[in-house]
Amino acid sequence: MSYKAIQLIKRPSGDLTPDIFATVELPRPVLEEGQFLVRQTHMSLDPAMRTWLQEREDSYIEPVQVGEVMRSYGVGEVVESRNPDYPAGARVIGITGWAEYVLGNADMQVVDPAIDPEALLSVFYMTGLTAYVGLIRIGRPKAGETLVVSGAAGSVGSLVGQIAKAEGMRVVGIAGSDEKCRWLEEELGFDKAINYKSDNLGGQLDEACPNGIDLYYENTGGVIQPLVFERMNRFGRIVVCGMISEYNRDQPTPGPSWVDINLKALRVEGFVVVDHQDKAQEATEALAGYLQNGQLRFRTQVLEGLDSAIDGLSMLFRGDNTGKLLVRI
Amino acid sequence: MSYKAIQLIKRPSGDLTPDIFATVELPRPVLEEGQFLVRQTHMSLDPAMRTWLQEREDSYIEPVQVGEVMRSYGVGEVVESRNPDYPAGARVIGITGWAEYVLGNADMQVVDPAIDPEALLSVFYMTGLTAYVGLIRIGRPKAGETLVVSGAAGSVGSLVGQIAKAEGMRVVGIAGSDEKCRWLEEELGFDKAINYKSDNLGGQLDEACPNGIDLYYENTGGVIQPLVFERMNRFGRIVVCGMISEYNRDQPTPGPSWVDINLKALRVEGFVVVDHQDKAQEATEALAGYLQNGQLRFRTQVLEGLDSAIDGLSMLFRGDNTGKLLVRI
Repeated sequence: MSYKAIQLIKRPSGDLTPDIFATVELPRPVLEEGQFLVRQTHMSLDPAMRTWLQEREDSYIEPVQVGEVMRSYGVGEVVESRNPDYPAGARVIGITGWAEYVLGNADMQVVDPAIDPEALLSVFYMTGLTAYVGLIRIGRPKAGETLVVSGAAGSVGSLVGQIAKAEGMRVVGIAGSDEKCRWLEEELGFDKAINYKSDNLGGQLDEACPNGIDLYYENTGGVIQPLVFERMNRFGRIVVCGMISEYNRDQPTPGPSWVDINLKALRVEGFVVVDHQDKAQEATEALAGYLQNGQLRFRTQVLEGLDSAIDGLSMLFRGDNTGKLLVRI
Repeated sequence: MSYKAIQLIKRPSGDLTPDIFATVELPRPVLEEGQFLVRQTHMSLDPAMRTWLQEREDSYIEPVQVGEVMRSYGVGEVVESRNPDYPAGARVIGITGWAEYVLGNADMQVVDPAIDPEALLSVFYMTGLTAYVGLIRIGRPKAGETLVVSGAAGSVGSLVGQIAKAEGMRVVGIAGSDEKCRWLEEELGFDKAINYKSDNLGGQLDEACPNGIDLYYENTGGVIQPLVFERMNRFGRIVVCGMISEYNRDQPTPGPSWVDINLKALRVEGFVVVDHQDKAQEATEALAGYLQNGQLRFRTQVLEGLDSAIDGLSMLFRGDNTGKLLVRI
């Protein structure tokens, strides 16, 4: 008995290319006492995965080693178990990998089978926790303030904007196509969405943010960053959640001078969601509340088959996805 | 009866030049009910004054207008009063101006005449409050962590390093001459001081900070900034108190990419002391405590005569001062 998996076979340099991965057949393991085997049904594709491919000093997480199965988050079903906490038939969510089957680990959580796995990966778990921690705990939103969120049509950005609306903010989203902008304004209730590939971005920001910008939720970096930065109000907060436009670069693009951070008393604070697992319960409850109040919508784009993950990961960096990107196996 | 004062007669562009100021004789005012007149004895010269000369949107303070007397902090004696809260003979500290006499204002504080005015301006008031708020409230030091402070031989930087030592940190100072570095190490007890005009700054930082850098107290910007930034530990904090190397530039120098802020979960937070007057009492008590414990030393450089302020202000930007720069009138 064997199963299909995708291994990292060399480190990327610059843009992701399919040749850094290889599909292999691995033997299905014989379980020891305490182990359990999960047949994965849904995998999440996330920009952060790009940072797991690189060796970096001070990294927040061990990089995936060359020769290892690529790491991911996913949902699956326990198909065989020698662990009473994870009985056969249970649905679990956790760190999996690009594989049809994965050996369970103690960080996996058993989840209610009534909850749609797509909703689980799109609104709760790491995606929801990221949006919640970054906006609420780090950004500390106040009703009446103006939020700008980049990567607004992405999985995290779209939640951030909707939570901010629920908290009474004026919300302006930055996205990469007119279709995404329409979705943000018409379906998600953003006050304004700006296509960063259009002209006169500064003028569009001025119009969208007549009272300046109090909170910037940064998912992307890129051309929009300096334009938002120079429009920050005094005592503004910038939450650096992601820098997707930078992850494929060998040489990082410089950021803004710190003079404005000084004189406007700005706070620029980064975070990585894996450091905030202790807020998972709080986040889940808050997100469930927004969802029940009809304040959160999401869309998923589901790719079919394990192999689709390889190009799927690149789609995130091209901005080709619409909503939360998942692979169904 | 008239007195001497120095007015701003045009806005600077780039480095400060003496021709932006002019010395004038002004008539001594006749007091109305509630007013009082202060003969200024000591004025403080501070890097922040450069930022008061420029028109800026979102400035934290009104710029000094062309034709107005230059603004400063200072100490003086009430020489005439129609205000019972500020009787003749009282010593006061507050916002004054480059002038022999200033009309009192309600923000002035009456101070104990037993305290040396030089100590008042060097350890307490705005200088001490700046060091205290930035380090303790924003930087949140922990014993055993490593602090790097730029502008370490300056009025604020030298207090920051000494307070950090008192709080149990490893303290590394950045200064602009070997003499200043010796003073920091031999007199103030810094663990290490580095002359930013010397070679191999990165190697010197590595040696001085074997466990990386947890807290960076930024007073200067310049060549040291990216070198310190790339050595920050995860969860590091950067307090942006000043950017003296940038204040004379029309085009600000870019800062570091935000990728590390994201992945290392750094917090970069700026502040301006005028926003933190509510912590003055707390700061004064804490500073008095450090002083009584023999944990704070200071040195002042005193210039003689009102006119010396004009070149004196430029000395701060050339790094020509040693310790807190004052003018005695």
